[in-house]
Amino acid sequence: MNVSDLGEFGLIERLRAALPAVAPDRLVIGIGDDAAVWRRDAGCTIATTDTMVAGVHFLPGAVEWRDIGWKALATNISDIAAMGGMPAFALVTLCLPPETPVDAVDALYTGLRECADDYGVTIAGGDIVSAPVFAITIALIGEAKMSGHREPLLLRRDAARDGDLIAVTGALGGSVGGLRALKEGEPRTGALRRLIERHMRPQPRTDAGRAAIAAGIRCAIDISDGLVQDLGHICSASGVGAELRLDRVPLDADLVATYRDDASMMAAAGGEDYELLLVGAEDAIARASAALPVPLTVVGSIVAGGVRVRVLDAEGHDVPMMTSGWDHLQGHGSP
Amino acid sequence: MNVSDLGEFGLIERLRAALPAVAPDRLVIGIGDDAAVWRRDAGCTIATTDTMVAGVHFLPGAVEWRDIGWKALATNISDIAAMGGMPAFALVTLCLPPETPVDAVDALYTGLRECADDYGVTIAGGDIVSAPVFAITIALIGEAKMSGHREPLLLRRDAARDGDLIAVTGALGGSVGGLRALKEGEPRTGALRRLIERHMRPQPRTDAGRAAIAAGIRCAIDISDGLVQDLGHICSASGVGAELRLDRVPLDADLVATYRDDASMMAAAGGEDYELLLVGAEDAIARASAALPVPLTVVGSIVAGGVRVRVLDAEGHDVPMMTSGWDHLQGHGSP
Repeated sequence: MNVSDLGEFGLIERLRAALPAVAPDRLVIGIGDDAAVWRRDAGCTIATTDTMVAGVHFLPGAVEWRDIGWKALATNISDIAAMGGMPAFALVTLCLPPETPVDAVDALYTGLRECADDYGVTIAGGDIVSAPVFAITIALIGEAKMSGHREPLLLRRDAARDGDLIAVTGALGGSVGGLRALKEGEPRTGALRRLIERHMRPQPRTDAGRAAIAAGIRCAIDISDGLVQDLGHICSASGVGAELRLDRVPLDADLVATYRDDASMMAAAGGEDYELLLVGAEDAIARASAALPVPLTVVGSIVAGGVRVRVLDAEGHDVPMMTSGWDHLQGHGSP
Repeated sequence: MNVSDLGEFGLIERLRAALPAVAPDRLVIGIGDDAAVWRRDAGCTIATTDTMVAGVHFLPGAVEWRDIGWKALATNISDIAAMGGMPAFALVTLCLPPETPVDAVDALYTGLRECADDYGVTIAGGDIVSAPVFAITIALIGEAKMSGHREPLLLRRDAARDGDLIAVTGALGGSVGGLRALKEGEPRTGALRRLIERHMRPQPRTDAGRAAIAAGIRCAIDISDGLVQDLGHICSASGVGAELRLDRVPLDADLVATYRDDASMMAAAGGEDYELLLVGAEDAIARASAALPVPLTVVGSIVAGGVRVRVLDAEGHDVPMMTSGWDHLQGHGSP
């Protein structure tokens, strides 16, 4: 059975039935009306959207639909985490070729639900349209905490200052290692399987984002385009430079075991790890390190004098980067 | 110049520069961070999303990019209007083939801005991705008013009751008339041009939605799939039936002038007029009719005894419908 057999309204009804029956108190109207409605307190709303297109953001046939569902939501949650907020409600848009098997959509929604359940997200609505290529777009709405003075407590890109330290949560490069394993089509056992899981089922750092806020950090970005490029976004927004010590970048253990020679460069440029890059004064980074639920590693510092990311080795020499991260319209860049 | 020459970040910067420079007081963070952030009062949030795919929802080459930008936002605003709310912030996702001319994206954004300005919407963020086919997805967040008892004041699909009257704003069929004119490729003068404009630049009824709320109406839907099918959605959600008098459906004057023999059927089944279908007690409909900024026409009534839409002629005889509206995965249905 494919989705054109069910039709738009049949498919919506099927997906609605698969969602948890008990809506949270705050949801006034969920799927099935012109729009979703929920109650809110005074404060700050955070909203983000992210899309995955078949053949562009994942390799159809090489990955599980269930994992695509997880990842589509997780990348959005990561954006909310990178603001220091908590996710709440999601709108899910599916662009479906008419011949898409209903089983694929069911599996996609299973992964979506798993991620929604893990992170306390309610799927409140969406849209289903026919299209020549599969794509999933999620809009995610969340909330920021407010200070005692009713100011929003946020992690921004434009708050890096000269002398700040740069730190990253967890270990990097696992995701791009998984992508390489998928492309090379190697047997999926042990380390390779774990790398692919890191690529397809990222674990956004909402807890770390909130802990960073509590520790007094006000500048962050999630690592989606790649450490060097995402650090560049912070530098551009803040009008500062950065020095990144390549030898200090924490490396995914399975990446090192699998692609030893390239591990360091892959971790610095690869992207899609969805760890947090935090920037703050030394004492705030120290407090965050003690409080965070994941390891936090200092990898460099912010410097004055020009918007530029210098990548340095252990001796302080510049390291030429092979790629500078991912541009979604141009593909990978060059040095 | 096409979008792959500019790249993702170049294009984002270009689009951001084209947006109004002065952000509203409530917007804390707009385009350029991981997510958008705005301040809110306590109350109710309304959120909806709607997608247009090239070749599915519009005919590339036959329509203006500027009009596609308008329509993509207007269809979302209509969903908020159909809840009785007011739109506020939009996230815009563009799926772009790399060879898309930058001029096309500029024109698209011009139309988007025109619609945003007319309806007080702030474009707060979005996503741009590469894809084999053009698509635009907008997520729109708005607000509902609250009653004195802190209950949200909404127009819902599930609030129709036996004996209620069914009324529609404005005139119907102009949009499907425009679609037919586009498909038949006729010279675009006079009535035909106005029909095409009705198809491509719908005017969502936010004012009418709010006036309906003030008049005590609590049930509505916007006419996107077609009058008969959208009335069916209300019947399904409310567990009631409906009798629709085909002879009372207000017809677009240019539709009658152009497609006289089919006008009535086209207006009842066509869709995409983005007028409001209101359902309420006779006195509430009368109050709304006096207060609404557009003509309101009673076209039928809600009846008990089975979820079913009967379409009747002036003598009360059943009229067989040729189509029952638009299903986005199956195409047009049959009787």
